[in-house]
Amino acid sequence: MKNGEKKVVIVGASAAGLRCAARLVRLNPSFRVTVVEKSDVYSYAACGLPYVLSGDIEDILMLRKSKDGMLRDSGYFSSVKGVEVLAGWNATRIDKQKKQLHIQQQTDLRTLDYDGLVLATGARAKRLPGLPVHPRVRTFHTYEDVRPLTEDLAHGRIKSVAVIGAGLVGLELTEAFTAMWGAEVTLLEAGSHPLPFSVDCEVGGLVGKVLADQGVACVFDCRVERLEAHDGGVRIGLPTGTIEVDAVIAALGVSANVDLAAEAGIRLGRSGAVAVDSDFRTSENDIWACGDCIEQVHALRKDPVCMPLGSLANRQGRTLANLLSGRKDRFPPIVGATAVKIFDWNLATVGINRQAAEQEGLQTRSAWVSMQDTADYWPEVKNIFIQMLYSPESERVLGVQAVGEGEVVKRIDVAAQLLANQAVLEDFAHIEHAYAPPYAPALEPLAVAAMAALNQQDGVEGLSPLCDLQAYDLLDVRHASEVESMPVGSQAPPLHVPQHEIKNRIAEIENAHSSNDRTKPWMVLCARGARSAEVARGLVGRGLEACYLGGGLIWRRLASKESGEDS
Amino acid sequence: MKNGEKKVVIVGASAAGLRCAARLVRLNPSFRVTVVEKSDVYSYAACGLPYVLSGDIEDILMLRKSKDGMLRDSGYFSSVKGVEVLAGWNATRIDKQKKQLHIQQQTDLRTLDYDGLVLATGARAKRLPGLPVHPRVRTFHTYEDVRPLTEDLAHGRIKSVAVIGAGLVGLELTEAFTAMWGAEVTLLEAGSHPLPFSVDCEVGGLVGKVLADQGVACVFDCRVERLEAHDGGVRIGLPTGTIEVDAVIAALGVSANVDLAAEAGIRLGRSGAVAVDSDFRTSENDIWACGDCIEQVHALRKDPVCMPLGSLANRQGRTLANLLSGRKDRFPPIVGATAVKIFDWNLATVGINRQAAEQEGLQTRSAWVSMQDTADYWPEVKNIFIQMLYSPESERVLGVQAVGEGEVVKRIDVAAQLLANQAVLEDFAHIEHAYAPPYAPALEPLAVAAMAALNQQDGVEGLSPLCDLQAYDLLDVRHASEVESMPVGSQAPPLHVPQHEIKNRIAEIENAHSSNDRTKPWMVLCARGARSAEVARGLVGRGLEACYLGGGLIWRRLASKESGEDS
Repeated sequence: MKNGEKKVVIVGASAAGLRCAARLVRLNPSFRVTVVEKSDVYSYAACGLPYVLSGDIEDILMLRKSKDGMLRDSGYFSSVKGVEVLAGWNATRIDKQKKQLHIQQQTDLRTLDYDGLVLATGARAKRLPGLPVHPRVRTFHTYEDVRPLTEDLAHGRIKSVAVIGAGLVGLELTEAFTAMWGAEVTLLEAGSHPLPFSVDCEVGGLVGKVLADQGVACVFDCRVERLEAHDGGVRIGLPTGTIEVDAVIAALGVSANVDLAAEAGIRLGRSGAVAVDSDFRTSENDIWACGDCIEQVHALRKDPVCMPLGSLANRQGRTLANLLSGRKDRFPPIVGATAVKIFDWNLATVGINRQAAEQEGLQTRSAWVSMQDTADYWPEVKNIFIQMLYSPESERVLGVQAVGEGEVVKRIDVAAQLLANQAVLEDFAHIEHAYAPPYAPALEPLAVAAMAALNQQDGVEGLSPLCDLQAYDLLDVRHASEVESMPVGSQAPPLHVPQHEIKNRIAEIENAHSSNDRTKPWMVLCARGARSAEVARGLVGRGLEACYLGGGLIWRRLASKESGEDS
Repeated sequence: MKNGEKKVVIVGASAAGLRCAARLVRLNPSFRVTVVEKSDVYSYAACGLPYVLSGDIEDILMLRKSKDGMLRDSGYFSSVKGVEVLAGWNATRIDKQKKQLHIQQQTDLRTLDYDGLVLATGARAKRLPGLPVHPRVRTFHTYEDVRPLTEDLAHGRIKSVAVIGAGLVGLELTEAFTAMWGAEVTLLEAGSHPLPFSVDCEVGGLVGKVLADQGVACVFDCRVERLEAHDGGVRIGLPTGTIEVDAVIAALGVSANVDLAAEAGIRLGRSGAVAVDSDFRTSENDIWACGDCIEQVHALRKDPVCMPLGSLANRQGRTLANLLSGRKDRFPPIVGATAVKIFDWNLATVGINRQAAEQEGLQTRSAWVSMQDTADYWPEVKNIFIQMLYSPESERVLGVQAVGEGEVVKRIDVAAQLLANQAVLEDFAHIEHAYAPPYAPALEPLAVAAMAALNQQDGVEGLSPLCDLQAYDLLDVRHASEVESMPVGSQAPPLHVPQHEIKNRIAEIENAHSSNDRTKPWMVLCARGARSAEVARGLVGRGLEACYLGGGLIWRRLASKESGEDS
């Protein structure tokens, strides 16, 4: 499609479409590129919308401005980018034979000829089946969704709100309602923990604790049975009873906007999104697609996935422009890196979690480490928690989940590069990182997680921080002061031998275990899982059956649903 | 060397030696591992020492404590790690035939039999040749170096100090003297900018500005000709004259401690450090080496290098223990990731800089981008500056330098993984990152740097932020308000056409250039280098000779030695 005066029509003026359009024109000044957009407001940073609600961003217009302060409207795209944007026009039908796109604005009908058509129709918020259409029951996905919600909050019309869905946006909204507006939030999630599609229960448990500490009422494993909106509020029927709130936000994620594609007979993938090849071609000649409406190859899954992330959409738009201009480029398989701020905690993940691995038919094992994000003596040191999921057979790393008050996002960015390269545990153990005390410990926490996994492969098993302690005889190797400040609270009190006394008191441990007192395998406990792993290795070396609590008691305490659960 | 009761002797109780020792015992409980250490104080986090001086770390003992608060002394290593540390003993000679190490403590002489010997003798501070031995002229490398310096500062005996060497430690000390103690610091550096071995002048210029803003007197291209210490201070003779200070710190880096190895005839590499194979074997049977005293394979250099970094030393000790225990492991080539905090700025680098590339005989090209570390609308957004060095022929990325008030270290951690995989520009352009507005822009800045480089390969050249503007006719495409607040200050005033007016005023630009007014190639200018790159591409597309200022005027202004240099 390169060379000469070509007409390119792009449907959708969001990240993918506009970036593709602007670059196409830059690379091919002779091209005429028209973008058709159904909304009047477009080219805004949608990922920033929750932060308008939270007050972090004072003026929503900031989301529509270029770095040099210009409003990204049709004038901007025309004068600066050389792209014509037809805003407020709905693309209604593709005529593949005539290579025309039919568009409509109220009663106005037009057709646009194209040499190439790019679908960048994006995604739309999912709605609960049977969700009533009512101003008190909303979704939160577009620019237009922000103001009515903010006004209701500002005028005291919403003092309590139920957020349905503890995904990325659900969590961002929960924070905004709570921290900015002081609203009472009930978070309803069908899964057993927050972010069920990207993290496992151990990490989800930590997030649950953060939410609970902020006064958010979380209800997990929760099916909404009834939802009745009335002028005064919304009544929600749950299996456990009925709750009444001022408003409901359905934050159920998004689904690809494929109406136009489907109508044109363009092949959709199993995910329901538009299927494209590695060059973003659809099943139809001269029609390409990119952005949130397509599905892509995932490095860790058999089937392509629809992963509507702004970072991917931007890059896809650019790549497609390169390809349409005859430039060499290729979009590599994605690994699904995501990040979200949850109050003062940071969470990031990459790859797949246990549930997804199960769907892929993969055997998995996990390692958990409770680390610190800088040198431990650095005054601003903070805790971080990392779970690494891997294949015990190939030792390939399948996913990393990291959460904490400290810096976790950079670790996931690093992990993303390794996952994209099919890295195994040994690769992770040998991560080189830029070390200085304010930035990291001397051993990078990601590497430590891999080392814990490798030790596991070597017979030193670290169990889930949420495992059932009752199946074990417990050996607590912490200092007395630590035991006092954070008791284990197990039914049977652990045998307490601080690590530095183990060597001299090993007979006591061996005898305890051969006598009738203790008949179960040993589980060694410490604060973070480091000391206990060392001791467990020693016991295993002496022929005892032993494992340790992965991530240590710190993780367990924070992630357990009830803080006194073992007592 | 696995199995059975083996005697392993390790020389040097720092990161590499002790980590190796502890893991050896854990993996092989039957081994007897003895560590010989010449100092009484050891196993401290040496990278933290400058932060004791700066007051960030209140108690130097924190550097000697384990995470669970135990002092890492001989008792600790014996009881917790099962390792015997002979502290205060000097290893004087290796008897390779008898497989014995001779050690000495004052008049006490002993020999230790070994089945395996590990040299982890570390590095020592380099001294200027002819540096006088005098209490006012010091180095700063060991635990013992801290207290006398702090006391002199606390008692007002040091109010002015010359730091010789603007390397990592020199910069950390400069910050400590200035910010904590209010001392007048003169920083003397033989290179043309700070960190001459890891960054180029464009990034070095930014660091120089940070230092100057903090009142540090920086003297670059500076050879110390004379240094006379007397009771009242130190007189330093420079080519430009004599300065007088209360104390001198030589921060010239370190060199491998190889006395023991050299005496035993163990092969040293060209770098002067102990040569080892990929399994950390020295040239002699049953003798291994790891840590700061060895040289290692570098992914981007032909010859092995000595790179004494705590992060590498830790990992080497662990790897060697794995290998000595018959575990599969391999230490990959290093890419040399480093980080340093400089007042409120962060700096990190990986790979090689132009000077090193030249030594390797490599052709290079650079791309510069002035970016922001989060979404541009995020309230805490900060500037970051990235220089990417690559081979114009293979497009392999050779090095990345990043600096700014914002988050740069994570970008270098990410880059390190790619460099370790011989990544090319396209790989960098397709970095997947965990995106959310508080953590990153939608397009990862590292990817943007690679895109700038790829555009360069495509004919859109971005020149060094420090290039000579006089060779060009200047076209300023910023808004009028920007021009007003940051004038270019060039001899000939630039033609000013804001980017959004380019389309309508293109004839003006073309005519200006074909008339006699403007006869040089165009250089397009903007704040950060993004708009100017777009405009430059447009001009090139119209057959005009044009380039743009890489990194934009923001970078140039900050990195130029005199802020009004163009006027």
